[in-house]
Amino acid sequence: MALIVQKYGGTSVGSPERIKNVAKRVAKFRAEGHQVVVVVSAMSGETNRLLALAKEISAKPDPRELDVVVSTGEQVTIGLLALALQEIGVAAKSYTGGQVKILTDDAFTKARILSIDEAAMRRDLDAGKVVVVAGFQGVDADGDITTLGRGGSDTTGVALAAALKADECQIYTDVDGVYTTDPRIVPEARKLDTVTFEEMLEMASLGSKVLQIRSVEFAGKYKVKLRVLSSFEEGGEGTLITVEENRNMEQPVISGIAFNRDEAKITVLGVPDQPGIAYQILGPVAEANVDVDMIIQNAGRDGTADFSFTVARGDLDKTLNVLDRVKAVIGAKAIESDKTMCKVSLVGVGMHSHPGIAARMFRTLSEEAINIRMISTSEIKVSVVIDEKYLELAVRVLHRAFELDQAV
Amino acid sequence: MALIVQKYGGTSVGSPERIKNVAKRVAKFRAEGHQVVVVVSAMSGETNRLLALAKEISAKPDPRELDVVVSTGEQVTIGLLALALQEIGVAAKSYTGGQVKILTDDAFTKARILSIDEAAMRRDLDAGKVVVVAGFQGVDADGDITTLGRGGSDTTGVALAAALKADECQIYTDVDGVYTTDPRIVPEARKLDTVTFEEMLEMASLGSKVLQIRSVEFAGKYKVKLRVLSSFEEGGEGTLITVEENRNMEQPVISGIAFNRDEAKITVLGVPDQPGIAYQILGPVAEANVDVDMIIQNAGRDGTADFSFTVARGDLDKTLNVLDRVKAVIGAKAIESDKTMCKVSLVGVGMHSHPGIAARMFRTLSEEAINIRMISTSEIKVSVVIDEKYLELAVRVLHRAFELDQAV
Repeated sequence: MALIVQKYGGTSVGSPERIKNVAKRVAKFRAEGHQVVVVVSAMSGETNRLLALAKEISAKPDPRELDVVVSTGEQVTIGLLALALQEIGVAAKSYTGGQVKILTDDAFTKARILSIDEAAMRRDLDAGKVVVVAGFQGVDADGDITTLGRGGSDTTGVALAAALKADECQIYTDVDGVYTTDPRIVPEARKLDTVTFEEMLEMASLGSKVLQIRSVEFAGKYKVKLRVLSSFEEGGEGTLITVEENRNMEQPVISGIAFNRDEAKITVLGVPDQPGIAYQILGPVAEANVDVDMIIQNAGRDGTADFSFTVARGDLDKTLNVLDRVKAVIGAKAIESDKTMCKVSLVGVGMHSHPGIAARMFRTLSEEAINIRMISTSEIKVSVVIDEKYLELAVRVLHRAFELDQAV
Repeated sequence: MALIVQKYGGTSVGSPERIKNVAKRVAKFRAEGHQVVVVVSAMSGETNRLLALAKEISAKPDPRELDVVVSTGEQVTIGLLALALQEIGVAAKSYTGGQVKILTDDAFTKARILSIDEAAMRRDLDAGKVVVVAGFQGVDADGDITTLGRGGSDTTGVALAAALKADECQIYTDVDGVYTTDPRIVPEARKLDTVTFEEMLEMASLGSKVLQIRSVEFAGKYKVKLRVLSSFEEGGEGTLITVEENRNMEQPVISGIAFNRDEAKITVLGVPDQPGIAYQILGPVAEANVDVDMIIQNAGRDGTADFSFTVARGDLDKTLNVLDRVKAVIGAKAIESDKTMCKVSLVGVGMHSHPGIAARMFRTLSEEAINIRMISTSEIKVSVVIDEKYLELAVRVLHRAFELDQAV
């Protein structure tokens, strides 16, 4: 008998019919003797409907009141799922974030979980009940309703699993696991049986939409066994996200290829090569609320340097405006930009003990005459920025070169 | 400066536009220096939408979980109204029933209020904020969400006014006050400036839909000054519901004419005229969950009696089934029924000091050849059961006969 936390997203509970299907799946786990805590999102479309209502009233709504409105979406789902479970003979009880005492800070619309009181859940589980908890929401020390921000239901699931020391946290979604890369680009892409937290973090930050990055961090920190599964297919094992030590020795070097389409590259040419110049350029950019991703500085021989970085494509114009203002101050010669860039990354924890991965990647791309515009490496990934038109080609040839279509 | 509790129903907050209008009205009271607590219902249609979702999942949903689902309707409105107030520069804070600690019993879907902790509201009011509270809901001693049943938002408003010792509780609705009778039947019907709690209770129980009967009881018990107003018209005084002593001496004898269309009359003929016979007939009817309204027993000279009573028309078939079973036991000769009855009532606290009201009512009806089938009287009303086809005629001639169209 295991204690399992299951999280179902908005699509999985998008209609009464689908909620009944979730109830059937939960019942199966109960019938096998497991204790089950279920975390649910709002029915698909509901959060957007509530946000739209608030926007009709206020262009910039007060975050406390916005959370009061938006948190109702998950509250409806917990009641409906508890009813669906009872309807098929499974004892169940629902809890809002406040009722299960998911204590958060008071950063409305993006609160962070501080603690969870698991006593009531434990009592219900021991009494044979399924506990149904509203994802995405909590309560602050004043008793005000808070929400964790978009995708926060994943985080709720992981946090409950950590608090209850659950045997596994299962995230049900509309894909059946984590793939070596996007199957829409590479049909031979293969589902991974396991992936490490570090790899998952890199893949999530590089655009893989399977899991919310914060929940992966959380799971890694609290050593929660996390599994991604399809809520529409029966019997799949999904992908287990685990700590490296649990993986077998035969694990391939590269786990997957992630990519991000929406990149723009900016180069500040001929800035003085002196301490503090990076801050002088990026400080004003950060103040304008622009996230900078890859950063490269090349010192030339004439005492000046070229400074390149990437931003999300939608932030390019804003960033250029900022740089126009600081150009004179920093003494730059010129500013160049290119908005049709993309980023392709190899991810794999095995990489740091296998030299030559980066070289093989560059060779593979050069064989297709794909020009590499920027390079960035870490312990477990190599990223390149290339022209967007080469994205699909690059992902396909790399997938083949690293034999990601071969089962281990 | 007064402390005012205002309650707005579902129609008054049925769209973002209407919520903005409510905010403007509240702002006007704030600008006049009053402290304001606002109680709101769910946006019109929302409660039914939520109930329908629950019904799709369970034909007989568990009341605890049903309350979790349905209570979200009011929660959305409080957040939206607080946003609308802030948007026009009025400080405001929303509270769910649980947050304002409206403690109820645990009779889910029809809970009764036990106590209200007014400390937080008082603090906000003293800080110049408008307090926005979700109607219809509370929380039980275990922290479970409860609802007060349909129309419960009126009760929330009155209960908050009682707890805060408010100067007035204003119920905003889609009519501009309480009328001498339904203006759709009698165009000369006149809006009453005041009406007593007792009269309002009689009128509510006789089918006037202006106020929920429970909130009137509550207001009477705690001496809350209650006023009914239109949420769509500006500047009206509405109707003040008050204790009798507050009314001036010139108050007319009759305040209004109430009626109820859906009556059915049943007569049990020739039952033994002996103690306990009423219970033998009505006990099984009550067990079948049928509400009996008017009851009349006529003893004849042969030691038998005829026993008549009225029920809601929809309950007639069920009642006849019950009586068929007990007919032999009680020794009744026959059972007759008529399902095309209606009830017309004169209501007025002045009546008990003015003899002859009933006689004048009967004469007025006889002049139109309207046959009276049953009569029932109390301190402040005279009700008659007549054929439904005479309903409009009876109401019109009585309205004229008692000069209800004349301003006082």
